Amino acid sequence: MKIAFLGLGNMGIHMARHLVRGGFEVVVWNRTASKATELEKLGARVAASPAEAVLDAGIAITMLADDHALESTAFGQDGFVDALPHGAVHISSSTISVALSQRLAKEHEQRGQQYIAAPVFGRPEAAEAGKLFVVAAGNLDVIDRCRAVLGTMGQRLFVMGDKPEMANVVKLSGNFLIASVVESLGEAIALTRKYGIDPQEFVDFLTSTLFAAPVYKTYGGIIAGERYSPPGFKLRLGLKDVKLALAAAEAVDMPLPLASIIRDHALTAIARGMEELDWSATAKLAAENAGLK
Amino acid sequence: MKIAFLGLGNMGIHMARHLVRGGFEVVVWNRTASKATELEKLGARVAASPAEAVLDAGIAITMLADDHALESTAFGQDGFVDALPHGAVHISSSTISVALSQRLAKEHEQRGQQYIAAPVFGRPEAAEAGKLFVVAAGNLDVIDRCRAVLGTMGQRLFVMGDKPEMANVVKLSGNFLIASVVESLGEAIALTRKYGIDPQEFVDFLTSTLFAAPVYKTYGGIIAGERYSPPGFKLRLGLKDVKLALAAAEAVDMPLPLASIIRDHALTAIARGMEELDWSATAKLAAENAGLK
Amino acid sequence: MKIAFLGLGNMGIHMARHLVRGGFEVVVWNRTASKATELEKLGARVAASPAEAVLDAGIAITMLADDHALESTAFGQDGFVDALPHGAVHISSSTISVALSQRLAKEHEQRGQQYIAAPVFGRPEAAEAGKLFVVAAGNLDVIDRCRAVLGTMGQRLFVMGDKPEMANVVKLSGNFLIASVVESLGEAIALTRKYGIDPQEFVDFLTSTLFAAPVYKTYGGIIAGERYSPPGFKLRLGLKDVKLALAAAEAVDMPLPLASIIRDHALTAIARGMEELDWSATAKLAAENAGLK
Amino acid sequence: MKIAFLGLGNMGIHMARHLVRGGFEVVVWNRTASKATELEKLGARVAASPAEAVLDAGIAITMLADDHALESTAFGQDGFVDALPHGAVHISSSTISVALSQRLAKEHEQRGQQYIAAPVFGRPEAAEAGKLFVVAAGNLDVIDRCRAVLGTMGQRLFVMGDKPEMANVVKLSGNFLIASVVESLGEAIALTRKYGIDPQEFVDFLTSTLFAAPVYKTYGGIIAGERYSPPGFKLRLGLKDVKLALAAAEAVDMPLPLASIIRDHALTAIARGMEELDWSATAKLAAENAGLK
Repeated sequence: MKIAFLGLGNMGIHMARHLVRGGFEVVVWNRTASKATELEKLGARVAASPAEAVLDAGIAITMLADDHALESTAFGQDGFVDALPHGAVHISSSTISVALSQRLAKEHEQRGQQYIAAPVFGRPEAAEAGKLFVVAAGNLDVIDRCRAVLGTMGQRLFVMGDKPEMANVVKLSGNFLIASVVESLGEAIALTRKYGIDPQEFVDFLTSTLFAAPVYKTYGGIIAGERYSPPGFKLRLGLKDVKLALAAAEAVDMPLPLASIIRDHALTAIARGMEELDWSATAKLAAENAGLK
Repeated sequence: MKIAFLGLGNMGIHMARHLVRGGFEVVVWNRTASKATELEKLGARVAASPAEAVLDAGIAITMLADDHALESTAFGQDGFVDALPHGAVHISSSTISVALSQRLAKEHEQRGQQYIAAPVFGRPEAAEAGKLFVVAAGNLDVIDRCRAVLGTMGQRLFVMGDKPEMANVVKLSGNFLIASVVESLGEAIALTRKYGIDPQEFVDFLTSTLFAAPVYKTYGGIIAGERYSPPGFKLRLGLKDVKLALAAAEAVDMPLPLASIIRDHALTAIARGMEELDWSATAKLAAENAGLK
Repeated sequence: MKIAFLGLGNMGIHMARHLVRGGFEVVVWNRTASKATELEKLGARVAASPAEAVLDAGIAITMLADDHALESTAFGQDGFVDALPHGAVHISSSTISVALSQRLAKEHEQRGQQYIAAPVFGRPEAAEAGKLFVVAAGNLDVIDRCRAVLGTMGQRLFVMGDKPEMANVVKLSGNFLIASVVESLGEAIALTRKYGIDPQEFVDFLTSTLFAAPVYKTYGGIIAGERYSPPGFKLRLGLKDVKLALAAAEAVDMPLPLASIIRDHALTAIARGMEELDWSATAKLAAENAGLK
Repeated sequence: MKIAFLGLGNMGIHMARHLVRGGFEVVVWNRTASKATELEKLGARVAASPAEAVLDAGIAITMLADDHALESTAFGQDGFVDALPHGAVHISSSTISVALSQRLAKEHEQRGQQYIAAPVFGRPEAAEAGKLFVVAAGNLDVIDRCRAVLGTMGQRLFVMGDKPEMANVVKLSGNFLIASVVESLGEAIALTRKYGIDPQEFVDFLTSTLFAAPVYKTYGGIIAGERYSPPGFKLRLGLKDVKLALAAAEAVDMPLPLASIIRDHALTAIARGMEELDWSATAKLAAENAGLK
């Protein structure tokens, strides 16, 4: 069964490589074609457009930057949705809005195609190492049929429900929780610094006791060491993710007070000139708001 | 060297027992004397007042409920501060305000006594199992002299600086971080529930991937299962801790925006009748604010 | 010079009537045609579509419910933008997003038409009495040419700048300030009620001293009397306006922390079942969050 | 009947002067005695201590800076509470905490003295012109007996209830409402400035339409003109008032979300170096948080 992989950014390139190496027949497409060269050498075929990529495909996987990129790849000129064969499956792994996921579900259903959402957790290093966590939702039979593919892209698969949007909500909620860790660490480290406590010692204490989780280690280290540049993930992208969580909540008439605060802090940090820094630079704002230089 | 242990609540009783079993000569005092019976059988001596307890003591350890309890034990009738021998050490393990810790430092210094703060992290079960984390600050020589004692009360000692208040700030910051986890989980679980996702499955996903830390497991389980009663730690006590963090920040002229939000939510939850529930019932408020019954 | 007036809701009907009575030649259009009957009797002509209404018009005035309504009237089937004569002026009085105002400016410019934004302040009673305040922005010569028309719809005209969006920003900022009054009054009245103070006496005191402004009288009276139903302006519409202010701020990379709070409270009030109440029902939420029944 | 007036700051000096000129027999006391010279020339007697001032007095009026100043004047060395004659009335006009007002009520009752709270609204200019608004609460017969005195200090008297603390709550709520105006104006003016709108024109529009109240004129002018120095009322004093409102709310188990935000912004402004500016400098913070220089 042929797999089309659309989107070879710093996550997708690794996910596609695992599929090629895993023995699947893979056709790739990327807006900037040069990114595909490496995969071509490994045996992938390169398509000139999204529509061409999905010809005869049983599965089309998308891993694009945002709603806009996915929309134009799906519905723009030479978009893949109209070209995807009847009965084929679209696996959407991008971090997108719940609204777009709901629209895709409807559009694919109208065309007799299948659609599941399968966003991933992990940074590019994890993608390269095959250590991503894959969260899938949608028709359970379809997910079952895709298990080999999903299992090849990550280390573990979590199935979250029978409506695709559920996986997107889990992804956005997870990102919101990570953003909450950054915000709370930023405030706590600013407080302890004001009292003369060494930030790295404070982080070491936290991460060797109650908060022994990777996310506390990663962001605790960045904040303690004030290593906001070069950015791993820019502030505006972090803001975008928090806004997606807020939009998902708003769509079901509920607030997310912590996300509102984080959104406001991210906007303030951008306004104050931190746009080019890592999204954890809201912790830099917290330090400055505490009078630390 | 004689150790006086003041305060046999659901944490202190275990800490004192470890000291008795560890072979130290221990005199205990508790406002409600009956709590001391068990330790008396193990070999501890029971004093009738804080002042009596510290006679001839080399070390006085306090583990009391709050500022008010420690103040009356220290400075009230038959308080221990005036009775503590010159050169003896007061180890304050209670969760108290930075302001009271600063006052104790001054009062002890004026009397030629030593003072270190050594609050602990862990719940009563951890105290019983000797698994507490002890965070100490103050004169480093004095801390060194107390290592055997501090090591007997917990599994590991972290030294945070040479001013006692530093340990209190770390304790309050740690509690603030735990409160932030509860708030963020409460919001995220409410969001996923609105989309029909099973809360326990969501928590299982979180705690087996990015958030594999005890605090996420404990509170994720409580919130997913809505097990707010019986309370492990009542809402008003959680509110008190958040207010101590806010006060510590205010004293050095800085905000803690997340703590402000959590304080407001705890007050709202109390106003709405959740006073007798566990302090994680702010997550119940988050669910109700999302329209979940 | 012929004037086309599009949108005869509970504001537009009065504004159009003033124009007819003022002697202008007016063609009206409304999605629900029956609303136009009264104006027809007064001498207005009724058009069957937006496009028909603006034929030969020198000025087209729009007073529609929201972005969506204006977009479909402007760009939908038989929309007026393509039909508006070269050189004619579109006066947009609806409360719309800055983004839509910017788009209209561009679309009209491309067609050789003029565009000014002229939103109004005041409730339907004020519109009926000709007491609206009109805030205009755009090309100043064009505004000057429209002075007679703008002056007929309201009691006073304020010119805010030469870019149309400026008037929209002033409108959204004004609405945000009103929402802030409601929120602050809601909290203050809840606080005084908790101490047994009569809310109407408190409001009387406020509005006869420091806060002697209409907005405090109107909303103070509603909140003190708990008269949230029937609604003058529903909660979801209030939420929409606050979101427009937040979006205008976000578009220039800045937070509006008070608006974020108000947004969260409006969402909470909706989630808790107050959707059909007046938008000032966030004050009812404030009372309930204080434990008042 | 002799009146003792304690506290001749920039408010008290004017209030006392009105009483002297009004023909009352007035004994004044101030910590810095030189402030009393002017009143002495007008006919007031000057006492050397609070206790001496209230000897034979029928009424003692206090107008002191804060809780601390009133506590030491009342209960400190030569404090007036123990010296006030049985049956005499203490009129407390200072802006103090609800808790201190409740304590005073109890202490005076135990001594067979009367106590009413009568805080005032208005700035020093209003005090000088006799234009203060007086808000009184306590035993209604006692308030009636004091009407001539209260009427001499201000232009109008509002009676808010039979428990003294009620007047304090109204005062704190009023100050909170003023702080809310400052915060909302600060955010709205920053937003309009970002779009190129002249801030003074925006304020002129507001204050000649919906917000035609003195508080909007005063603070709108300060913010539009960025006249934060010299301060009329320093940032830390504004912070103190907001904290009193928060404490009053907390004492009855309720949040004041807007006050929490304002508190956080005031702390941030202090941390960022604005301590010597007017308390409306939170609007300067709002501008900086919008990226305005």
